[in-house]
Amino acid sequence: MRIYDIISKKRDGFELTDEEISFFIKNYVNGEIADYQAAALLMAIYLKGMSDKETVTLTLEMAKSGDMLDLSGIDGVKVDKHSTGGVGDKTTLIVAPVVAAIGCKVAKMSGRGLGHTGGTVDKLEAIKGFNTALSPENFIDTVNRTGICVVGQTGNLAPADKKLYALRDATATVGSIPLIASSIMSKKLAAGSDCIVLDVKYGSGAFMKTPEDALLLAEKMVTIGKGAGKRVRAVITDMDTPLGKNIGNTLEVIEAAEILRSGTDSDLTQVCIALATNITVLAFGIDYIEAESRVRAALTNGEAYKKFLEMVKAQGGDASLIENTDNFAKAKHRKEVLSPADGYIAATDAEKIGSASVVLGAGRVTKDDGIDYTAGIILHKKTGDIVKKGDVIAELFTNDEAKLASAEEMFISGFVFSEKETERKPLIYRVVE
Amino acid sequence: MRIYDIISKKRDGFELTDEEISFFIKNYVNGEIADYQAAALLMAIYLKGMSDKETVTLTLEMAKSGDMLDLSGIDGVKVDKHSTGGVGDKTTLIVAPVVAAIGCKVAKMSGRGLGHTGGTVDKLEAIKGFNTALSPENFIDTVNRTGICVVGQTGNLAPADKKLYALRDATATVGSIPLIASSIMSKKLAAGSDCIVLDVKYGSGAFMKTPEDALLLAEKMVTIGKGAGKRVRAVITDMDTPLGKNIGNTLEVIEAAEILRSGTDSDLTQVCIALATNITVLAFGIDYIEAESRVRAALTNGEAYKKFLEMVKAQGGDASLIENTDNFAKAKHRKEVLSPADGYIAATDAEKIGSASVVLGAGRVTKDDGIDYTAGIILHKKTGDIVKKGDVIAELFTNDEAKLASAEEMFISGFVFSEKETERKPLIYRVVE
Repeated sequence: MRIYDIISKKRDGFELTDEEISFFIKNYVNGEIADYQAAALLMAIYLKGMSDKETVTLTLEMAKSGDMLDLSGIDGVKVDKHSTGGVGDKTTLIVAPVVAAIGCKVAKMSGRGLGHTGGTVDKLEAIKGFNTALSPENFIDTVNRTGICVVGQTGNLAPADKKLYALRDATATVGSIPLIASSIMSKKLAAGSDCIVLDVKYGSGAFMKTPEDALLLAEKMVTIGKGAGKRVRAVITDMDTPLGKNIGNTLEVIEAAEILRSGTDSDLTQVCIALATNITVLAFGIDYIEAESRVRAALTNGEAYKKFLEMVKAQGGDASLIENTDNFAKAKHRKEVLSPADGYIAATDAEKIGSASVVLGAGRVTKDDGIDYTAGIILHKKTGDIVKKGDVIAELFTNDEAKLASAEEMFISGFVFSEKETERKPLIYRVVE
Repeated sequence: MRIYDIISKKRDGFELTDEEISFFIKNYVNGEIADYQAAALLMAIYLKGMSDKETVTLTLEMAKSGDMLDLSGIDGVKVDKHSTGGVGDKTTLIVAPVVAAIGCKVAKMSGRGLGHTGGTVDKLEAIKGFNTALSPENFIDTVNRTGICVVGQTGNLAPADKKLYALRDATATVGSIPLIASSIMSKKLAAGSDCIVLDVKYGSGAFMKTPEDALLLAEKMVTIGKGAGKRVRAVITDMDTPLGKNIGNTLEVIEAAEILRSGTDSDLTQVCIALATNITVLAFGIDYIEAESRVRAALTNGEAYKKFLEMVKAQGGDASLIENTDNFAKAKHRKEVLSPADGYIAATDAEKIGSASVVLGAGRVTKDDGIDYTAGIILHKKTGDIVKKGDVIAELFTNDEAKLASAEEMFISGFVFSEKETERKPLIYRVVE
């Protein structure tokens, strides 16, 4: 078998066999296939596509290219969720304790933030003492004791994906549905859970700009998950506007804690309920209405909140910060952003608002940047709201006063005002089973 | 400007600007752009194509990437021909002296053979003493004295093409018309002549298998040449069957010398007349009928033959070998190939026959192989001929007796016999102006 023939075949639009895909992944990871040959194949895949069969095989081969997490030491149904990334997306902080309270086993690996989107690991680390770097034994043991543990990525998970992603990033071959789907799902499959619910975002702050594209990606990922023998669903949700009202690590923990404690309704609560309900349906094979009522109960009867506190304590975090969020360290500088006009807010561009938050210090531009946990934004107005000139539409927080002006400029460029009433896009566009 | 954006633009099917193409070539040659990025771009070009404007720019940038031959020291019209490569293709040995005899200045660089096709430099070196490695000054001086000089490629001609070709060869992106056309024409433009006639081959022994594909390539190359301000034409000729009757370096020199001396008519003579006539039309701006009569005159009145002898002497070759071709060294072993059946010859696969000649020692499999000048094949029967079982259809020559059996097997596999009369494909399919 020769990589040249595999490139030619895909270039001419033919379906690759399992053997050809396996040959490619194995020999690319071990360095036998050169980057330039992989790049030519990736561009051919980008332009000619991949069948579902090819995509499932590619994903499994990438998953098997490194460590496959062994969660067999955990009793019960292991569940996982994954978000394609958004601004103000603190759903894991809420959904994980909710489904753990219901009896699911959450043995979850999460990522750090990069660019305009945040990451769950950074948010958890905003809680003083919280340890996201447990040993595999400690990780399994914690899940067995408490039903929940969220850590950073450890081990050599899907190295083929790591190598291919870096190459795609340099060769303009990132935006291919089969390649995005296999990249995400290879890590999910290697992470070993039985049930996976995918939160596929669409809109200005998401990788997929339209609900139609998000649907294509969601369908492909669900196909892959099923092809690999998992129970899997995808929920397509709005990321045209940031989710919830707080953006930035400490601020998002505070917002999550409030919802877990009080069950307050909001766009964030609704997305969390949808995700948690779909996880519960998959985990226990019960119908949607029953699953949703269990989820709502866990949110309102304090069980989910207790589970969150239990998780924080089990992973070394200072639970008193959650119990009284006023005790969190605060940013030195605060600035109110005032509405420059009367009217309706027609759009709040999540990418620009996320970028403003990065300018304030809440995120990273490159992987090696440090972050300021206290920095971020509280939104007081969102798409569809009516405002008067001079109303406070948001507050900006930072420890670096010099950044306030440019962050405000970036932030306000994401707001579109209109004289006509406007509506938000559907918060939950579709569930793919 | 970023290569990432250039790749994305071509990937999405847009036309690249002159600046973008120039940026790519300059930075690829100097190593700023990685092979994997160039590979992704090449695959995007393969699948999305290039406009004529893009192809002209790409070719000029590749031509300018190294030395541009300065032929300004030569008075008169500098002419060049190029063949896309074939079996038994000794046209340069005939056409160059013919047009030089008519008054064109032939300052030509030729290549060596590789794979199943031969190269003019190897053929000339079959003449004892013939020097194809003259200094630039000697090259120009020889053309000024005799009107003709044929040398191997010297200097750093179109290094961008060399680097890109090697990458295309490893990434299944060779067979793209704009990339093939720009690769050939970049070297022709760097070689500095005013008039270029391209012999674009089609058929089993050619890179382009059909006349339609050859036409597309020919049109693209003529467009490039004109876009670069050259006088250029392409003649599309048959390479389904080897050209002429002799294959192998010494044998081809002998056949060329016979035609130059006697003007004997054959398929080879006809192709040479077509090429030389088109060169003459371009060089002197005269009509085709007048040009052809000058060409035929040069072939029959001995002027072309004299010019050939003059060229051999001027480049240090032993002209007595040409005057009496029986004096050429001969292969130790000769084998007659007999017809296995009665009937018509329906096809003689030029690629298989060329490969048989390589097996006998006449060509190279890799660039570094040596060659046996005396090895080769004389065809006694060709497509369309009628044969009886036991007729001699060819003679094989080699110094390596052990190779005769496998060469004969390869050779005979290229012959298709039929009970029905068959016709050769058109020898000259089209002239592209």
